[in-house]
Amino acid sequence: MAKQRKLRLGAVIHGVGSSVSAWRHPDIQSDASINIGFYRQQAVKAEEGKFDFAFIADGLYINEHSIPHFLNRFEPITLLSSLAAVTSNLGLVGTLSTSYSEPFNVSRQFASLDHISGGRAGWNVVTSPGVGTAANFNKGGHPEHASRYEIAEEYLEVAKGLWDSWEDDAFVRDKESGVFFDPEKLHRLDHKGTHFSVQGPLNIARSKQGQPIVFQAGSSEAGRNLAAKTADAVFTGHETIEEAQAFYADVKQRAAAYGRSPDSILIFPGIGPIIGATLEEAELKYEETANLGSIEDALRYLGRFFDHHDFTQYPLDEPFPDLGELGSNGFKSTTDRIKQKAKEHTLTLRQVALRSTTPRSSFIGTAEKVADEIQRWFETGAADGFIVGSGVPNGFEDFVDQVVPILQARGLFRVEYEHDTLRGNLGLPFPINRYAKQTVTSN
Amino acid sequence: MAKQRKLRLGAVIHGVGSSVSAWRHPDIQSDASINIGFYRQQAVKAEEGKFDFAFIADGLYINEHSIPHFLNRFEPITLLSSLAAVTSNLGLVGTLSTSYSEPFNVSRQFASLDHISGGRAGWNVVTSPGVGTAANFNKGGHPEHASRYEIAEEYLEVAKGLWDSWEDDAFVRDKESGVFFDPEKLHRLDHKGTHFSVQGPLNIARSKQGQPIVFQAGSSEAGRNLAAKTADAVFTGHETIEEAQAFYADVKQRAAAYGRSPDSILIFPGIGPIIGATLEEAELKYEETANLGSIEDALRYLGRFFDHHDFTQYPLDEPFPDLGELGSNGFKSTTDRIKQKAKEHTLTLRQVALRSTTPRSSFIGTAEKVADEIQRWFETGAADGFIVGSGVPNGFEDFVDQVVPILQARGLFRVEYEHDTLRGNLGLPFPINRYAKQTVTSN
Repeated sequence: MAKQRKLRLGAVIHGVGSSVSAWRHPDIQSDASINIGFYRQQAVKAEEGKFDFAFIADGLYINEHSIPHFLNRFEPITLLSSLAAVTSNLGLVGTLSTSYSEPFNVSRQFASLDHISGGRAGWNVVTSPGVGTAANFNKGGHPEHASRYEIAEEYLEVAKGLWDSWEDDAFVRDKESGVFFDPEKLHRLDHKGTHFSVQGPLNIARSKQGQPIVFQAGSSEAGRNLAAKTADAVFTGHETIEEAQAFYADVKQRAAAYGRSPDSILIFPGIGPIIGATLEEAELKYEETANLGSIEDALRYLGRFFDHHDFTQYPLDEPFPDLGELGSNGFKSTTDRIKQKAKEHTLTLRQVALRSTTPRSSFIGTAEKVADEIQRWFETGAADGFIVGSGVPNGFEDFVDQVVPILQARGLFRVEYEHDTLRGNLGLPFPINRYAKQTVTSN
Repeated sequence: MAKQRKLRLGAVIHGVGSSVSAWRHPDIQSDASINIGFYRQQAVKAEEGKFDFAFIADGLYINEHSIPHFLNRFEPITLLSSLAAVTSNLGLVGTLSTSYSEPFNVSRQFASLDHISGGRAGWNVVTSPGVGTAANFNKGGHPEHASRYEIAEEYLEVAKGLWDSWEDDAFVRDKESGVFFDPEKLHRLDHKGTHFSVQGPLNIARSKQGQPIVFQAGSSEAGRNLAAKTADAVFTGHETIEEAQAFYADVKQRAAAYGRSPDSILIFPGIGPIIGATLEEAELKYEETANLGSIEDALRYLGRFFDHHDFTQYPLDEPFPDLGELGSNGFKSTTDRIKQKAKEHTLTLRQVALRSTTPRSSFIGTAEKVADEIQRWFETGAADGFIVGSGVPNGFEDFVDQVVPILQARGLFRVEYEHDTLRGNLGLPFPINRYAKQTVTSN
């Protein structure tokens, strides 16, 4: 009998949220983005809900127009390491950019987090979309989109190579004979590539899950190819199930073209569920949050995706302006989608701005209805799982308390953790060390 | 009445230790360097002993001859972030190199650790002594000693500047008016120097202690100057009280020459106390550990300080060989001291090697005797405090259980924490934000 395919869930813990004004809601902790107690409580809640992992997004550039959450927040590696101490089964996934860091340092920090957490680390590999980022680093300029992905691919090659520096059973630690490790199971990478030159070995062993899980979030052509070639899982975002199905099929197909099993790469659309006792109550919660901010804030927020373009120069209630190539060297897939939607539905600038500042997905309504929608996406080739963030107060708690039990009752989601590693819970294959002579048993 | 000067204590948590063979002792956990349970237990013990901080040393290069602890250990930032979750008052200090990282990333990670821990972070700034390190990074070669210190100084300038990006009261978070922060209290660094170009602002606020505490550990000329100019505290190592007094006076004098109060920079020699019920029992513990390894291991360990020089080519029981300039672009002060001691006491190669692999300080004997020695150093201008590591099993526990109560009974050391920040406990002044218009109250 074939093993039943199980839904996976990740929790996006995101401080005061990705909206401009949600922090003003009376029930939101306005310092949540820099409040360790808030993050601990959310992580513990995610574990209570048997989530596969918590996810911490990131960015490396702000200015005075950035949204509140971006201005003052924890750095992911430090935050996840701290959360490792208060959780036992929850995966710990964080964003880190390959455009502005050294592969030796980064692969080592993720390996260390992986040991600290007993095999629960995951890395969301990004290439940094914002063009302002370069100014915070010792670089001439922000590399172009294609070049960033080329760098990312080589960077990941180096990281994965460093993670294999020691075979799984390299450390013998035989007190009697005085043999601490087996020198034949220590390997130097000696990587000399176009962008990196890294000798190795890494000064840390493989973890219980072999290597940290690699996530990827870019959905441009280059992003999809990188994901299909190298990632264990993909974060994505879609407004409709049809878009999600097309993306899902495309990435699985690309993975197959690289000789990979389509099951070895998991697709996680992001959703922002809003739960109410009735549809009306849920709608009211959405509106309450959407109306907290001004249209000026919304325009500024929209501008962020378009190289901080000033949208106040356009009339609000006329069709969304033609921006040409603006925004294509940054959040490319996001800006492409915004432009396309605006054209397709003849949206005004005001409509586009409000939708961008407080997204309104189809995951809104009663717990039953949201569970139905999740099941529909999961069973019709739109998702292997979801990353769940919520833009309304207690939105995440509502999801755990009300939606998860329904998914469990339907046999779609786990009632108890199957493993104590992230890889084990995600059902992904154990990565055999590239240097290993014998086959290592899967975890 | 002048406030009585108080002794400070830091705990070096160092896995299987800095010796080649201590891991072979039956009472040592041989996987301690990569065992998070061990680190947690040591940190909790340090806090039980009212230590000011735990210290995690680091390095970025290994080869097959490195000592066991170096081969497979946690990365400091991740480890300290995790320890923050299981401690409340203990400072969390880690080594990070300015030669192979980006100031924006590093200052941000320390700032984040500082928030996660509620103002308990410290950074031991090093420039990476090993010449092999460059091969793990995308660099042409290892910068020369003088150049590394020049880079470090500018790096620290940038880090401290970024830490001041937001004034202490910049985040207003007024839900009513919708003002999240005061734009006049946000500052862009716009640093353009010889080695770095960093715009800012940093995307994280100042912590409860203002800025992380800066430690420095180089004791060469350049290292002393950097410490005197920029550090809050200095780690050092001396075999005799006379050497320690000379170093202490020298650094305080250099600090004064830079216009700083000598009290604003604290000197911490490292000690490896070995406690016994009698002197004989303590001596026995030392010998038990020293005899765990072979002379071949000891020679290899010694070689590490001298660019991995092969010492097996020399006769063991003749005077230590003349090595010329070997070892001067790396662990310069260490190799200078080894050479000088060998000459002064006409030591043989065997003696030098064994002393280097299992150092034998004067902090050995009964708890009373070790407390006497600590008091003597503290009261005669040799130390403001100590970093305590121990090369024998339960050496640290013995120190906390037996020596600390004596120091407390003598009124030298705290019985309870005075503050919940590292800065507060160390009695260091709160750093006023460089952009602040009014004086901020000291913590």
